[in-house]
Amino acid sequence: MQNHLRLLTPGPTAIPDRVRLAMAMPMIHHRKPEFKSIMEETRVYLKKLFGTEQEVLPLASSGTGAMTAAVTNLFARGEKVLVAQAGKFGERWGQIALSQGLEVVEIAKPWGQAIQADDIEEALKKDPTIKGVLIQICETSTGVMHPIYEIAKVTQKYNVLLVADGISSVGISPAPLDEWGIDALLTGSQKGLMVPAGLSLLALSEKAWKKAEQVEHSCFYFNLKAELKNVVKNQTNFSSPVSLIVGLREALTMIFEDGDLDSLYQKHYALAQMTRAGIKAMGLEPFAKTNYAWGLTSVAIPQGVSGSDLVSLAAKKTGVIIAAGQEPMKDEIIRLAHMGYVDFGDMLAGLYAVASSLPTKPQGFNESFMSIAMQAYETAQNYPKTAITQ
Amino acid sequence: MQNHLRLLTPGPTAIPDRVRLAMAMPMIHHRKPEFKSIMEETRVYLKKLFGTEQEVLPLASSGTGAMTAAVTNLFARGEKVLVAQAGKFGERWGQIALSQGLEVVEIAKPWGQAIQADDIEEALKKDPTIKGVLIQICETSTGVMHPIYEIAKVTQKYNVLLVADGISSVGISPAPLDEWGIDALLTGSQKGLMVPAGLSLLALSEKAWKKAEQVEHSCFYFNLKAELKNVVKNQTNFSSPVSLIVGLREALTMIFEDGDLDSLYQKHYALAQMTRAGIKAMGLEPFAKTNYAWGLTSVAIPQGVSGSDLVSLAAKKTGVIIAAGQEPMKDEIIRLAHMGYVDFGDMLAGLYAVASSLPTKPQGFNESFMSIAMQAYETAQNYPKTAITQ
Repeated sequence: MQNHLRLLTPGPTAIPDRVRLAMAMPMIHHRKPEFKSIMEETRVYLKKLFGTEQEVLPLASSGTGAMTAAVTNLFARGEKVLVAQAGKFGERWGQIALSQGLEVVEIAKPWGQAIQADDIEEALKKDPTIKGVLIQICETSTGVMHPIYEIAKVTQKYNVLLVADGISSVGISPAPLDEWGIDALLTGSQKGLMVPAGLSLLALSEKAWKKAEQVEHSCFYFNLKAELKNVVKNQTNFSSPVSLIVGLREALTMIFEDGDLDSLYQKHYALAQMTRAGIKAMGLEPFAKTNYAWGLTSVAIPQGVSGSDLVSLAAKKTGVIIAAGQEPMKDEIIRLAHMGYVDFGDMLAGLYAVASSLPTKPQGFNESFMSIAMQAYETAQNYPKTAITQ
Repeated sequence: MQNHLRLLTPGPTAIPDRVRLAMAMPMIHHRKPEFKSIMEETRVYLKKLFGTEQEVLPLASSGTGAMTAAVTNLFARGEKVLVAQAGKFGERWGQIALSQGLEVVEIAKPWGQAIQADDIEEALKKDPTIKGVLIQICETSTGVMHPIYEIAKVTQKYNVLLVADGISSVGISPAPLDEWGIDALLTGSQKGLMVPAGLSLLALSEKAWKKAEQVEHSCFYFNLKAELKNVVKNQTNFSSPVSLIVGLREALTMIFEDGDLDSLYQKHYALAQMTRAGIKAMGLEPFAKTNYAWGLTSVAIPQGVSGSDLVSLAAKKTGVIIAAGQEPMKDEIIRLAHMGYVDFGDMLAGLYAVASSLPTKPQGFNESFMSIAMQAYETAQNYPKTAITQ
């Protein structure tokens, strides 16, 4: 009780009280009017959030379920896709594509770097049989954002489907599906959307729906055409995850009560600037040099420091839960998330947690790191509309 | 506020206050010790509930996801399965099997009847290339239970896999996996388990795990071998649906605080006897003549009465939510569920709701139908251990 528990992990994120209380209301039936009216409201919000006039489909699965759904509904066995891989979730695209029997061409970059639009263009120019590009908007394992705004221009030019994993970007940084020309955009509930995990969301462009018409979906559970027929009736194909959808409606109500999406994106952008400035002022090195994410800051751990020790100590001393790196980065980086229901105060606690859990102060450690962070927060203005940070 | 809302639908069912409050606690991270300890406790309960020493895998999906997972992990494209079909969910087994590219042999019976062990034996004798039997324990669309205890003897004799959908039976009527010789048993969270939808559970026998070893799973999201490796570490393969697992732990705690599973099964058996007796005393006809379910009572609607009107009127007048029939049975039956967090008082309200929503009293209507129902409840003793009701 001494310290509040602060979940600064890149999913799950803290759930607002309002959302938790809404989910705690008695169960309602998913084929009855009360649920349909909740779905109707949710659909309107989701279209705004995804920046599309297409339907956004809710699926009872984690985000990986929506990734699986996108691949198994959009590409037929034997078709060729380009996988942009610079982290754990890029790897996952490759695994899903292979398990669907697709031919995979991979652009791989070292973890921590972004795949550039030129890289994609070169690959598409070289091989005109490629039917789609599978990529993350934000690679959660590294805290790097691939420049989707620029990449979408390329995929449109070459007329291939752009399938974007927005699990750590939807509700955090802009990527309007219709305006940018994304063909499939998906997310999970437990990141920017401030809801427990178990619900994923997926929208397809008109072009992607046309492609889906020609593909026989290969996993019975993920039948996007059947989901579409249901969602327009404010239903889901199978039993709806009612509590999670009720929570999502409440979370989206909170988001849109605050005004338009600008204030949501501005908050995340400012928290990213703040966290990055604070980390640098501690003498630590952000892991992402450019194209850094708005929802999490990855930090290179100084030599001789154990990432998992740092994370455990921070939890024990301060109640702040931060994430270690994943797989090859396990002891190379820590990840401090600022997505969803967090504010500057939580991030001050997060920065303090890191600073006070380092075994020794790094060279260049500035005792004013928190003030420096707040200055960066206050001066962060006019988030870049294309979500690219240099 | 005049009447309580009473959800007497065969899923979702009412969520106990304790479960809702547990789920409303702040979010925790699914890779951290607190969650692992919840999973550990849940695993122990689930093994007891499923009657197995094997692991019970939690999946972030509706029950249909677990059905898909069972088929896509246990049978390779081109293998032959026997589908026992006497309702909507039997049909679903067939659809899933076909979408996996399996060869399907079907035993179909009219909706409302049970598939008998002899039917299964005949089919297996005739075609020794059949690798598995896909069946419901309780067919939710008709309120009929197939005699799984007897059927398991047959599948063991012919050495084929018995894949049992226990969505409306787990936590309601007994079907211990190890003792009876079931090879795959699955359920969803929103029925007997008193948790919102979005979580499914699946256990495989040793024989089924051996088969799964030889099959390359065909849907990336449902990889049971990877789930097994994770569950023994109190983890799930992808992001865990934390709130639903927290709710499940609380619901299972409640179940096992009440004693062993005997009292749980006895309650459901007694409520089934009660509801059936009440319906008959109203001059109405139970739709299932034999092999009736312990979790719901299906009722044939008298000619000239509209099922959907009856259901709407009951909701409006009494706050009791009952279910109409599904698809071909839409205006033929109503379904009154007594699964999960319901007691005799709720069922009295449910019986009253039906009686008072009938446009005219059926022939043979006995004004004492509620007392007659309570007598049946009180005298229902020693539930049949094989779950077969004649």
